[in-house]
Amino acid sequence: ATIAPKIKSSWVSKEESRDFMAVFPDLVRDLTDVPEYVDIPEVTKRFAKVLQYNVPCGKKTRGLTTVATYKLIEDPSKLSDQNIRLAQILGWCVEMLHGSFLINDDIMDASKTRRGATCWYLVDGVGMQAINDALLLENGVYALLKKHFSDHYCYVPTMELFHEVIMKTSMGQSLDILCTVDQVPQLDYFTMNRYNAIVKYKTGFYSFQLPVSLALYLAGRYDPELHRQATTILLEMGHFYQVQDDFLDCFGDSEVTGKKGTDIEEGKCSWLVVLALQRATPEQKKVLQLNYGRRDPKCVETVRNLYEDLGLPNTYAIYEEESYNLIRTNIQQVSAGLPHKLFYKFLESIYRRDS
Amino acid sequence: ATIAPKIKSSWVSKEESRDFMAVFPDLVRDLTDVPEYVDIPEVTKRFAKVLQYNVPCGKKTRGLTTVATYKLIEDPSKLSDQNIRLAQILGWCVEMLHGSFLINDDIMDASKTRRGATCWYLVDGVGMQAINDALLLENGVYALLKKHFSDHYCYVPTMELFHEVIMKTSMGQSLDILCTVDQVPQLDYFTMNRYNAIVKYKTGFYSFQLPVSLALYLAGRYDPELHRQATTILLEMGHFYQVQDDFLDCFGDSEVTGKKGTDIEEGKCSWLVVLALQRATPEQKKVLQLNYGRRDPKCVETVRNLYEDLGLPNTYAIYEEESYNLIRTNIQQVSAGLPHKLFYKFLESIYRRDS
Ligand SMILES: [Mg+2]
Ligand SMILES: [Mg+2]
Ligand SMILES: [Mg+2]
Ligand SMILES: [Mg+2]
Ligand SMILES: [Mg+2]
Ligand SMILES: [Mg+2]
Repeated sequence: ATIAPKIKSSWVSKEESRDFMAVFPDLVRDLTDVPEYVDIPEVTKRFAKVLQYNVPCGKKTRGLTTVATYKLIEDPSKLSDQNIRLAQILGWCVEMLHGSFLINDDIMDASKTRRGATCWYLVDGVGMQAINDALLLENGVYALLKKHFSDHYCYVPTMELFHEVIMKTSMGQSLDILCTVDQVPQLDYFTMNRYNAIVKYKTGFYSFQLPVSLALYLAGRYDPELHRQATTILLEMGHFYQVQDDFLDCFGDSEVTGKKGTDIEEGKCSWLVVLALQRATPEQKKVLQLNYGRRDPKCVETVRNLYEDLGLPNTYAIYEEESYNLIRTNIQQVSAGLPHKLFYKFLESIYRRDS
Repeated sequence: ATIAPKIKSSWVSKEESRDFMAVFPDLVRDLTDVPEYVDIPEVTKRFAKVLQYNVPCGKKTRGLTTVATYKLIEDPSKLSDQNIRLAQILGWCVEMLHGSFLINDDIMDASKTRRGATCWYLVDGVGMQAINDALLLENGVYALLKKHFSDHYCYVPTMELFHEVIMKTSMGQSLDILCTVDQVPQLDYFTMNRYNAIVKYKTGFYSFQLPVSLALYLAGRYDPELHRQATTILLEMGHFYQVQDDFLDCFGDSEVTGKKGTDIEEGKCSWLVVLALQRATPEQKKVLQLNYGRRDPKCVETVRNLYEDLGLPNTYAIYEEESYNLIRTNIQQVSAGLPHKLFYKFLESIYRRDS
């Protein structure tokens, strides 16, 4: 099984990415240079450190998507520098939330590295205080919203959206963690239904729905039917993205993806293992029971071979094609007055990615 | 040093306490019996368990204070069952937030028990997933606010207050944890200024300001000057309460308080140690350096004896009296149209408590 070449043309230019980065220091200042907190300089200094270490170092897909979406859907006459800056602030709010989730996720998964660096909770002198740092990031979102949006018509829906999305993401985390009991993956739970629910709750809402819905609110688009249609498509894209991610984790070229997959040794409820369990003979199921979720490289190799014996790379190739076409069809049927271009661009940006 | 007898007459009756408890099951249902979540019953079941274990088992002082304050300040013609129920819901929101903070605090402090039971993260099969459970509780607050208050005029100020108070409490936690480096208390940091800041941020805002401000909002009282005056007094009471708590931790009768104090072995930045450091000779300071923050009972005894040598029990008795009188004077000067009775009752409920 080989991976299709990278054909993705990013819908975010280098300039946009640079402009987005340029806003971050101002937001750090908004959060830490507060007259009310002059009596606790140790804490604001630490907050700045937490922000620097955990927020701006990733790919910033979610934040940049927020800005790109806003530019695409806003009435050109309203595309002022000031409004674009508001979109950038919302984008950073999503990135702060993402950083907060990652801090906690790494503790709960006992991970060692993140984005090529040491996980925050493992950094010298941090430890379990990282939990509190995650809380600072999460609540920093609301501090920024209050400062920059409290007179804006999008203020309340935006706050409510963050509340709902955080709740759903926490529920997805719960569902994900409940798949493992005493560090043993519970293969009986690994059904396609559960896989779909984990993907939707754990990443779909905050990585796909949230950036677009925020941009819509900022542009004054509140129609619930419009948000419902957008969310449906975006969650499909999120699902598509996660299946790709799971496939690449096992069969991707680590020289291209830049990371060695660990889903098998970590016993993750991945798309591949769910499919394998559906197809496995009783003997093959036993092989999975014995080898899945173990740190031993031989066990990992055994599982990977089983995936190949079951023809999963081929199944994936077919799934990817069909799923892509289905999403394109669904985009055509969006009737709520959203530019189809928005979704096509988003879809292209995640299709046949090789990393 | 002996403790004054318990003279406190609670301002919450048994009936009020029972009525408050009766609301809780409905809120668990609001949070877990949601049509949108029918596809993830494992998670809603777990959420219910998290709520049951971590929310209703404490003293519920904050929740009951919310209700008692509301009844005291609301126009009698508006004191309908429906409005009282809203106050009870707000009270439970404070209790949920409290539960969320306690889950995280116990992880960060590596505590073993809480309210006489095993800390949630140490319960069989929970572990670090407790972090995510704390997030469910925190965000459950906003789910309840949306369900019960989204058409109420207090909705936005109430949400904003929760955001601000959570941020400040997290900052207080940060400040508290930063007092200890590699499990060694940094006695150089233990100044009265820092002590005051920790108390204000870590507990003052959410335990004292929050219940009263929520009740004021529900009663339609938004005047910032009124809230400012109330907050000033309430933070003073929070400080008074914490000094008492620190004193009782060391010198209280554990048969009365129901718990053995551990501030000395845990190396906490307590009022007693701050005062001791102010008064200690260089030799006595050395004794503190060697004995403070150690699990050895002999070290604890040495520190307690030093406190007595320095006359701290007597200092405390004077402080308690003076502080009480000062707060009473400040209450008399509240001019923003708040019933002084509210503050007097609150103050009496925490004065000369022996547990
Ligand atoms: Mg992880
Ligand atoms: Mg995880
Ligand atoms: Mg992955
Ligand atoms: Mg603690
Ligand atoms: Mg603590
Ligand atoms: Mg104490």
